[in-house]
Amino acid sequence: MIKITIVGITGYSGFELFRLFLKHEKAQVVKVCATSHIGEPLHHIYPQIKECSEIMISSFDPSIIMQKSDVVFFATPAGVTNSLAIPFIEHDFPVIDLSGDFRLKNPRSYEKWYKKPSAQQEHLEKADYVLADVNTTAHQLISNPGCFATACLLPLIPLVKGDFIELDSIILDAKSGLSGAGKVLSESSHFVNVHDNMMMYKINQHQHLPEIVQELKKWNGKVEFIQFSTSLIPVNYGIFVSGYVKLKSGFSFDEVQQDVKDFYKDKKFVRIRSEAPKLSDVVGTNFCDIYLTYNQTTGIITIISVIDNLIKGAAGQAIQNFNHLFDIKEEMGLSHLARI
Amino acid sequence: MIKITIVGITGYSGFELFRLFLKHEKAQVVKVCATSHIGEPLHHIYPQIKECSEIMISSFDPSIIMQKSDVVFFATPAGVTNSLAIPFIEHDFPVIDLSGDFRLKNPRSYEKWYKKPSAQQEHLEKADYVLADVNTTAHQLISNPGCFATACLLPLIPLVKGDFIELDSIILDAKSGLSGAGKVLSESSHFVNVHDNMMMYKINQHQHLPEIVQELKKWNGKVEFIQFSTSLIPVNYGIFVSGYVKLKSGFSFDEVQQDVKDFYKDKKFVRIRSEAPKLSDVVGTNFCDIYLTYNQTTGIITIISVIDNLIKGAAGQAIQNFNHLFDIKEEMGLSHLARI
Amino acid sequence: MIKITIVGITGYSGFELFRLFLKHEKAQVVKVCATSHIGEPLHHIYPQIKECSEIMISSFDPSIIMQKSDVVFFATPAGVTNSLAIPFIEHDFPVIDLSGDFRLKNPRSYEKWYKKPSAQQEHLEKADYVLADVNTTAHQLISNPGCFATACLLPLIPLVKGDFIELDSIILDAKSGLSGAGKVLSESSHFVNVHDNMMMYKINQHQHLPEIVQELKKWNGKVEFIQFSTSLIPVNYGIFVSGYVKLKSGFSFDEVQQDVKDFYKDKKFVRIRSEAPKLSDVVGTNFCDIYLTYNQTTGIITIISVIDNLIKGAAGQAIQNFNHLFDIKEEMGLSHLARI
Amino acid sequence: MIKITIVGITGYSGFELFRLFLKHEKAQVVKVCATSHIGEPLHHIYPQIKECSEIMISSFDPSIIMQKSDVVFFATPAGVTNSLAIPFIEHDFPVIDLSGDFRLKNPRSYEKWYKKPSAQQEHLEKADYVLADVNTTAHQLISNPGCFATACLLPLIPLVKGDFIELDSIILDAKSGLSGAGKVLSESSHFVNVHDNMMMYKINQHQHLPEIVQELKKWNGKVEFIQFSTSLIPVNYGIFVSGYVKLKSGFSFDEVQQDVKDFYKDKKFVRIRSEAPKLSDVVGTNFCDIYLTYNQTTGIITIISVIDNLIKGAAGQAIQNFNHLFDIKEEMGLSHLARI
Repeated sequence: MIKITIVGITGYSGFELFRLFLKHEKAQVVKVCATSHIGEPLHHIYPQIKECSEIMISSFDPSIIMQKSDVVFFATPAGVTNSLAIPFIEHDFPVIDLSGDFRLKNPRSYEKWYKKPSAQQEHLEKADYVLADVNTTAHQLISNPGCFATACLLPLIPLVKGDFIELDSIILDAKSGLSGAGKVLSESSHFVNVHDNMMMYKINQHQHLPEIVQELKKWNGKVEFIQFSTSLIPVNYGIFVSGYVKLKSGFSFDEVQQDVKDFYKDKKFVRIRSEAPKLSDVVGTNFCDIYLTYNQTTGIITIISVIDNLIKGAAGQAIQNFNHLFDIKEEMGLSHLARI
Repeated sequence: MIKITIVGITGYSGFELFRLFLKHEKAQVVKVCATSHIGEPLHHIYPQIKECSEIMISSFDPSIIMQKSDVVFFATPAGVTNSLAIPFIEHDFPVIDLSGDFRLKNPRSYEKWYKKPSAQQEHLEKADYVLADVNTTAHQLISNPGCFATACLLPLIPLVKGDFIELDSIILDAKSGLSGAGKVLSESSHFVNVHDNMMMYKINQHQHLPEIVQELKKWNGKVEFIQFSTSLIPVNYGIFVSGYVKLKSGFSFDEVQQDVKDFYKDKKFVRIRSEAPKLSDVVGTNFCDIYLTYNQTTGIITIISVIDNLIKGAAGQAIQNFNHLFDIKEEMGLSHLARI
Repeated sequence: MIKITIVGITGYSGFELFRLFLKHEKAQVVKVCATSHIGEPLHHIYPQIKECSEIMISSFDPSIIMQKSDVVFFATPAGVTNSLAIPFIEHDFPVIDLSGDFRLKNPRSYEKWYKKPSAQQEHLEKADYVLADVNTTAHQLISNPGCFATACLLPLIPLVKGDFIELDSIILDAKSGLSGAGKVLSESSHFVNVHDNMMMYKINQHQHLPEIVQELKKWNGKVEFIQFSTSLIPVNYGIFVSGYVKLKSGFSFDEVQQDVKDFYKDKKFVRIRSEAPKLSDVVGTNFCDIYLTYNQTTGIITIISVIDNLIKGAAGQAIQNFNHLFDIKEEMGLSHLARI
Repeated sequence: MIKITIVGITGYSGFELFRLFLKHEKAQVVKVCATSHIGEPLHHIYPQIKECSEIMISSFDPSIIMQKSDVVFFATPAGVTNSLAIPFIEHDFPVIDLSGDFRLKNPRSYEKWYKKPSAQQEHLEKADYVLADVNTTAHQLISNPGCFATACLLPLIPLVKGDFIELDSIILDAKSGLSGAGKVLSESSHFVNVHDNMMMYKINQHQHLPEIVQELKKWNGKVEFIQFSTSLIPVNYGIFVSGYVKLKSGFSFDEVQQDVKDFYKDKKFVRIRSEAPKLSDVVGTNFCDIYLTYNQTTGIITIISVIDNLIKGAAGQAIQNFNHLFDIKEEMGLSHLARI
């Protein structure tokens, strides 16, 4: 069994990692760290695991973690991992970071969008941004993609790679359930303000925007910008992206669609659908369901992309990356299907 | 126009008073007080009133309130009105208090259930607890009933008055929407913890319990206790009470039901229904819909009682009490009907 | 009192008309028609009106309607009004039609998008499409705009009128609550399929698309098409539109925004907001709240437009049109404010 | 691998069986039957299984089922299994029936509560009602308990067995999510009628009532009746029962609580909690979480019992019964934990 430490166990992604690893046949969580509840059993916070695990919450101690485990997952807020991870990076100890701290390669960009001090340049250089369904090779420091970025990049990458679309036409209207906003108590997470409601937030300011552009550029250097909006919808889990991109003249939509299918033909967790997917098709799973349709009048391809924000958008993808790193079957621990 | 001051405008009940009074033909809100946002227009907090009102939020000053208005409503948390209201009480200035501070006549009971210092005995004695649909006479200090208490008392009062039921058999299983818990940010109001969920809270400890018993005793001195539970359900507004009481031998259910109908036959806001009401029949309105049905096998009358917790359970009833106090048509400002 | 008949009282819009007219000081609903429940009191279907109205459901008889009332509202499904309304049109009797039957001036377009036979050309010519906040003059046959069309047109009209935007760049991503889909029982309205879910439907095929284009053309003849998507979100009421349009070079966004504000400066029910509106700001009201923001990097103006689909998007706007037609104060019967 | 046939695959319970069996290490679903969609792949109805299974929907043919599989599950509506199951019963072929058809041992009781013809007496006699957490021995025809019955019986059985409570005092107020009402399209499952709402239904008439009494009698013959109510709450999955029972004089609550704990001390799927469980603690799992608390003033024990209606209340318990029947580890295929 590969021994796992999770840092940041009290947040949604941290516990989702823990919950998913309970069914993983080759890995075992041996240590969970937090800044509160230290010394308490984890089931004090998550009573649903009572019968399965007596694991205690520990304080964070890098040397003990390196001693006791084979890999550490950080499910910590932005601005934390970039310092906490340093001892592990310096010892070339495997790190999988679910936060945004190692995603943006340009420290100034990080500081602009996250409004926090960036990780050091040398550490950023060691980090591999690994979108698990398009990139399986990584070294010791894996930066796990953002939830919105995952849902947006998976449909867009084959489109920009093939140079099929007008690169200045990309518009992404993304909606997220409330677990995406974390456990922080705020007016915008109060039930009465969310239920029966919908609101757009961080318009043109969401920190996943530069992440998406940076990654698209790897596939087509001519991508300069995207238009990207994020809204909250009254569900607990899930991201629903509607995207609008202009087909380049000279391409037929059928050909483009076939190319996207081919791009993902061996990928278990990306499903190119022949009808519009609903959020419920993927909630609770590690799938990204993608649908493309073309409007002849406007020349626009409508993209629908849906994921579970905590699984494919965070903990599930992290485990997929872990499986790749340790040469385990990709779907181990991740074979959940949606209910109903 | 009767001039109104509302103290505690930033809470749900305070704003609901304001919103309802905007349509009242004989009253005008001239002053709104809070402990925060002082000096800001109210529409900074409630953008939906922007086009209708430029009223500013003031700090609380009893002498200015008494100078500028004819009556003051307190929509403040428990433990606040009992001191804030003193100058008004001493000047015999009309007060309608939506908090729990003047409901329990026994200071020790208040201190036990609210875990705060009680109002002074002499002030408690001046306060009239006025359940608007059964009691319309009041003096200068009106204590407006609690939301759960309203939904429970309205069906129970005719039953205990007529001595139709076993008085030790009263079981009330009450459920509330989240606005009932106020705007306070807490884990139990975080969307992810409420949505798709149901939880019971304050079991045998809810402060409306002694209020219900105290009021039932006025109609039948032999009432000693009730069994009372409160749960949260994932809706914004509304209280749904299921009650179970044992019919006394010697009474026929039809006769009891007729008596309840007769008791409320001239009451506009209490509707004895011939089929089980749904929450949606009353949300957005000042109605209490009541249904009774009898089980011959068990001898138990099942009671359903539904109200809007912020209207009939708070601001609407307060305006009904205000209308009575100022000899205005009872339904003025309160004639909303449920949607759908 | 102006006497009103409502045809189609069993649907959402028909009852919403009825409910709103109950508070209208110059109008009274004297007749309600349906194809079922004939001879029953309306409160059999809508128990919430029991204490307010004993009105009975009638069958549809044009001559009786013309005898007994001053105006008829049709809240009937598409494909029904175009024949039912004929006698009224021929007698120049005032008709306000909430269905889509008289909206599209081109019968072939109607037949393409609605997949039903169109109204006759001569009747279409008599019909005035009246978006109440931009057009107040109308003759005897008023075609009330569609709910999505209303939410999309209100922000777009000043933008295309001023020729401020690239006309081939208009992308509208609209989301609706479930009452927008009507009372019909279908898999897509089953609670389990909607709750915790989001789905896009009728992609590039929604019948409000040609309506929006037709109306925009009135303000700028060069508009040829729009990209338009509609999704269902798990709320009962409300439409939330995110729109994306490209600012034409040569214009500053501030100037454009000022122009939009000026366009609506005397309009009570259109509010140009300085921060992003939420759905809850308008639910239960006749307001359309609009927000514009500009992204310098992409050159795109993001539009947010929110309405209550049954009020501003149907019954409320119809009453606003009625008020104009009968020279009544525009806001009569429509002065509701959002809760919370 | 044990080969499974599921009859009634298009309903919620049928698919939940299928979905859970996909992760079962010792069983494989080889055949799924329905009365519609015959000849189509199951993923036409449930796109979320596309990548996992190409199984086709078959028509129902008992001899083929007996040839191809080792056990048949019926997830059919009431009134169907009692005839469909006959050939299997006559061949002593293992049947697990999730419908109500073999639950009530008295045919007249079935006909009264289900309003349908009962199974034949001789077949009823062959059927074992198996509440998986209290009874593990069964023969070839297993009648799987009802969802409400499961949630009510698990806490009540030790209480009546120990004769700890007044047997005429049992009041059960049960609430269910909408999947409990099945896929049938009806006004009461239309999103707009359920969302933001709560309603009580089948008051004193729910068919699980006689089932609960029948089973309690097995543990204490003096049980004669219960008071039982069922409501719908706006969630997809889950049953939340609040129960009220009177402690018999002479017993201490602590002793009773200890007895309940002891009764379930070796049961993996029944958890006696020390704090009130929420619905979310068990949704998605096979657990029943139970909480008891005592009110000294009233002498009443409040019971909270929560389950997932489709798992512990249907498919999960059926698999647990299957595991017992085939001598497989009880928790195989059932080790899911709640999210969040």
